[in-house]
Amino acid sequence: MESSAFVRASQFSMFPPKRNSSNRDTLPFKPWKPTTSRSTTLQCHKMYVPGFGEASPEAKAAKHLHDFFTYIAVRIVSAQLQSYNQEAYADMMQFLERHPLNDGDKFCADLMRESSRHKSLALRILEVRSAYCKSDFEWDNLKRLSLKMVDDRNTRLMRDYVSETSSVKSESEK
Amino acid sequence: MESSAFVRASQFSMFPPKRNSSNRDTLPFKPWKPTTSRSTTLQCHKMYVPGFGEASPEAKAAKHLHDFFTYIAVRIVSAQLQSYNQEAYADMMQFLERHPLNDGDKFCADLMRESSRHKSLALRILEVRSAYCKSDFEWDNLKRLSLKMVDDRNTRLMRDYVSETSSVKSESEK
Repeated sequence: MESSAFVRASQFSMFPPKRNSSNRDTLPFKPWKPTTSRSTTLQCHKMYVPGFGEASPEAKAAKHLHDFFTYIAVRIVSAQLQSYNQEAYADMMQFLERHPLNDGDKFCADLMRESSRHKSLALRILEVRSAYCKSDFEWDNLKRLSLKMVDDRNTRLMRDYVSETSSVKSESEK
Repeated sequence: MESSAFVRASQFSMFPPKRNSSNRDTLPFKPWKPTTSRSTTLQCHKMYVPGFGEASPEAKAAKHLHDFFTYIAVRIVSAQLQSYNQEAYADMMQFLERHPLNDGDKFCADLMRESSRHKSLALRILEVRSAYCKSDFEWDNLKRLSLKMVDDRNTRLMRDYVSETSSVKSESEK
């Protein structure tokens, strides 16, 4: 953790101080394109998040969501098959029993290679997860729910602790 | 899954058909407040996602993100402590060794009850995870990365499959 922080700090000091101080107002100060949140973290005084290497917390969260979308797509396709294609539904269920859905991409890759029937199922899952995250998933709702959740949970944790310790105190005072 | 779908369908039929058909244009048709994506799914022809009970996929994803924000907050606080409060840092590391971070809220609840020193660490984690998800986390970037990831991964999966099967075919043709 520390060593990477030092490397980053030293990268900053490599920019010529003259340009950094005197020409800042006339020339746009853009030494690199900020692609990760770590870069912007240091520029705009966000909290430093260690341990993400070259990736960003956003990229890590996107990977989690990506696997989640695959899981959703499998559920959507299964529910559709169940109502009008029992044979394909049985194929899907049998495959699901033998293969974990933790890594969505590996699941799809394995499904593709199982048989030609399974391949068409896999292609449909790829299509559905793309359509789902682009059209159906409510991104604004995700943000709203997350911000509400952190407040609710923080309040609950503190309230539970206070009520627990105050009842212990009042009992010991008896 | 099916039974819950039937329950939902029967809920719909409980609305008086008269109001539903004739007064739709004059009166706003809002029989319930859509708080989950399942409700809107049925209203605006999104794909049906089974198996989420009363919750929505967005709520499930928000819970995942909530635990992720706690993990981030623990890393942020640890990195800060490491640089100026070695004693508290050691407390934190020892606690981390004994308690998993899978369930962020349980972790914080346990940390609060460990000792008064640990309690102040827990309160700081609560504060940091709230500030992080409200100010630092780049929500737009998360969406952008996720949409890009699904396209990239789908392309890669199909390309890998095609190149694999075409090379097998060309070998068998030799």
